[in-house]
Amino acid sequence: MALLLPPDRPAPAAAALLLRALRGEEVPRPPVWFMRQAGRSLPEYRELRRGRRMLDLCGTPELAAEVTLQPVRRHGVDAAILFSDIVVPLEAVGIDVEIRPGVGPVIATPVQTRADLARLREPEPDTDLAALAAAVRLSCDGLGETPLIGFAGAPFTLASYLVEGGPSKAQARTRALMLAEPGVWAELLERLAAIAAAAIETQVRAGAQAVQVFDSWVGSLSAEQYDRHVLPAMQLLLQRIAALDVPVIVFGLGTGHLLERLAATGARAVGVDWRTPLPEAAARLGPAVTLQGNLDPAACLAPWEVCERHARAVLDSAPARGYVFNLGHGVQPQTDPGILTQLAAYVRERHA
Amino acid sequence: MALLLPPDRPAPAAAALLLRALRGEEVPRPPVWFMRQAGRSLPEYRELRRGRRMLDLCGTPELAAEVTLQPVRRHGVDAAILFSDIVVPLEAVGIDVEIRPGVGPVIATPVQTRADLARLREPEPDTDLAALAAAVRLSCDGLGETPLIGFAGAPFTLASYLVEGGPSKAQARTRALMLAEPGVWAELLERLAAIAAAAIETQVRAGAQAVQVFDSWVGSLSAEQYDRHVLPAMQLLLQRIAALDVPVIVFGLGTGHLLERLAATGARAVGVDWRTPLPEAAARLGPAVTLQGNLDPAACLAPWEVCERHARAVLDSAPARGYVFNLGHGVQPQTDPGILTQLAAYVRERHA
Repeated sequence: MALLLPPDRPAPAAAALLLRALRGEEVPRPPVWFMRQAGRSLPEYRELRRGRRMLDLCGTPELAAEVTLQPVRRHGVDAAILFSDIVVPLEAVGIDVEIRPGVGPVIATPVQTRADLARLREPEPDTDLAALAAAVRLSCDGLGETPLIGFAGAPFTLASYLVEGGPSKAQARTRALMLAEPGVWAELLERLAAIAAAAIETQVRAGAQAVQVFDSWVGSLSAEQYDRHVLPAMQLLLQRIAALDVPVIVFGLGTGHLLERLAATGARAVGVDWRTPLPEAAARLGPAVTLQGNLDPAACLAPWEVCERHARAVLDSAPARGYVFNLGHGVQPQTDPGILTQLAAYVRERHA
Repeated sequence: MALLLPPDRPAPAAAALLLRALRGEEVPRPPVWFMRQAGRSLPEYRELRRGRRMLDLCGTPELAAEVTLQPVRRHGVDAAILFSDIVVPLEAVGIDVEIRPGVGPVIATPVQTRADLARLREPEPDTDLAALAAAVRLSCDGLGETPLIGFAGAPFTLASYLVEGGPSKAQARTRALMLAEPGVWAELLERLAAIAAAAIETQVRAGAQAVQVFDSWVGSLSAEQYDRHVLPAMQLLLQRIAALDVPVIVFGLGTGHLLERLAATGARAVGVDWRTPLPEAAARLGPAVTLQGNLDPAACLAPWEVCERHARAVLDSAPARGYVFNLGHGVQPQTDPGILTQLAAYVRERHA
């Protein structure tokens, strides 16, 4: 399988664009990548996935690297994000987890008591995370100058899958444990912070140049709940990442009421969903925090002229420095990849 | 089946408590009821439901009234809410809809083009909504002085089921139609406003003394999207309800960023979920808007002392006037009904 990018990939000048924008430096144009750019929206992914379990694909470095590169080849985005899943480090320490098509991660034996916590040991990089490291190395080899973003699930979001036993609409059992057993909860989140930190360390040591922490479901908390029950574990996690000297993006869906908290974790950048206008996020977080977002992924399901109009509005509303173009949530599986290619080109060329 | 309440039901003095609180009048204590108080958390409901389809239960007035009364008998709450479903008026005009256990409403043929709109005619009260009216009359007969809250699904939330064909995580197809075909969208929402208005008129004429409009999923919109694509239909709906002279509560999950918009519909009261502190909602909406909420339903899954502590914090943070105690979202199905009974008693007795 040819992992190298074709010769018409972005010029080296654009290579470090993402890193410079994340650091808040002046850049000729905003870098562009898409959450979930790798995966179900691409026919070449669906082809490769056929007959394979999702976690087997993640665990086979050559295949994971190929899927990681597919959207970079196709769309010419300014960054790759490792094709993996936030439950991979949980599986690596022996949690029985399966990703069911159309459902999401299902945990065979949920974590609900103090006794269950012993199952959540920190992974050994050289053994438990060897496939993850190999996938990153192969991806970086194929990417050349284009940076690879590593990632991990945040403690709250990992906890929500472990406690509920799978995806849930409202994370009510998770918050019930949090409210009823704050001591068990705090230890659960500390252990998950260590697991996430180990996964990120492995990816950075293997070549990832930036990382994103996905706290997809933390928007189900009030700010007070976040401060008390989540921020300490996030700060632990971000402190461990700080030693790696790579920029960290923190993102969660529906976290407009928590933006200041996401920044208080120590993140270099905060992902903003389409419900919070970028000027509001910029005013609340100040120039020291880079913003990433926030085109409504629904706009990419509309005809190109509609998508373009919304993309223009996002770009017009973005801060001049410290800004990365992205969607406000992941690419919807049914998205026409041609729209994403046009969108990436539009962002690249608008300032040319 | 005995529909009358037992003799230890709330005293007549408390009967109009809900209505007075909704109107912003001074009351001796906040009224209390729970969203989804009728239904799956109650063993007497599960008993009655066994072997019956959800929509058959809604469509059988004696049974719907019995389920409506069950939580009033058991918990002594200050209001009943009709046991029904927001898709009942859609089924009444011939939409093929089924409520699948563990999934939610599934629409056989989604609404996605202008041609589909013709299926959404306004229901005829005397024929299409006769069972709904009968269920309300029987409920009111059984309730005596305790007020019955009628309800309907808001246009956006009804549209999300119709467009997606069922429940969805992110309502992306719905927003895609809204962005791509604003004309079709506006007509869709107008028609749904007419359907919701007819359902509410029927309930009020049959005896409902207040109404709640559930816009459960509208929190997936930005404020700008709401203003442009939802507010006009909501104002149409609220204008029609205004002629009925009953207080209207508007509620949506995760609408902290939209509270001012929900009030701009003309609603007398706005439901607040647990993520927005009541003092913040009060400051933003002012004293002319009654607040309803906002105990985290997850607190009702915790032991009573935890639930009580959170309920106390909610009551302590509530405005002195224009306030109705409720959860910040519906009762979770796995909730111990004993906790809800204790919670209702706690709210009733705290100011005694």
